[in-house]
Amino acid sequence: MSLQTIATRLVDLCNQGKNFDVMHTMYAPDIVSVEPTGQATVGKSQVIEKSERWAAGVTIHGETVLGPFFHGADQFATQTTFDVTRKSTGERVTLQEVTVYTVKDDLITREQFFFGGETW
Amino acid sequence: MSLQTIATRLVDLCNQGKNFDVMHTMYAPDIVSVEPTGQATVGKSQVIEKSERWAAGVTIHGETVLGPFFHGADQFATQTTFDVTRKSTGERVTLQEVTVYTVKDDLITREQFFFGGETW
Repeated sequence: MSLQTIATRLVDLCNQGKNFDVMHTMYAPDIVSVEPTGQATVGKSQVIEKSERWAAGVTIHGETVLGPFFHGADQFATQTTFDVTRKSTGERVTLQEVTVYTVKDDLITREQFFFGGETW
Repeated sequence: MSLQTIATRLVDLCNQGKNFDVMHTMYAPDIVSVEPTGQATVGKSQVIEKSERWAAGVTIHGETVLGPFFHGADQFATQTTFDVTRKSTGERVTLQEVTVYTVKDDLITREQFFFGGETW
């Protein structure tokens, strides 16, 4: 598959709220997921569990993904806006992030999150 | 200065269309600017000249910059939408990109462009 095909598929699925479909079908077994703090989570199941923990803490009202934006032969970026309510506080907030993905052998091997402002 | 201060200043200036003010005042002498193709331009004056060549080929009607989005101690990203007319064709187009910036000693040492779709 081309990088364009992979990236467009990811954006389309995320715009349908199917982020976990992306993780289960498009992540490499040894994917590295790097948080804005620099903390890295290694391994497909570990990264999915991390996302499950985040998703369990919020009610997601909507998700809008811009992109893909391409760089080089193996990278693309997206810009995502989440409309969520934090279950712990009941607060409804807009969360914005940029994600940079690296692809190898048709699978995502690295995702690097950039978070907006003080809102995360 | 904090990374937040630097990144917010960049976003504010670009949202005012003052991209060249950013380049002249916030770029390190040895900045590396990496195009979506992977091609790198090294050096502040060389990078400014590259941008001047691009700007000379378009009429910029508007520029909207989202962000900053932070990653680690020294990186941030932005998402930019340009509304331009290409002087060569008269075609008015919307150009979208994500840029990842690296900061050292209060100056931008690297910028990495991710371009949207087939539009660039």
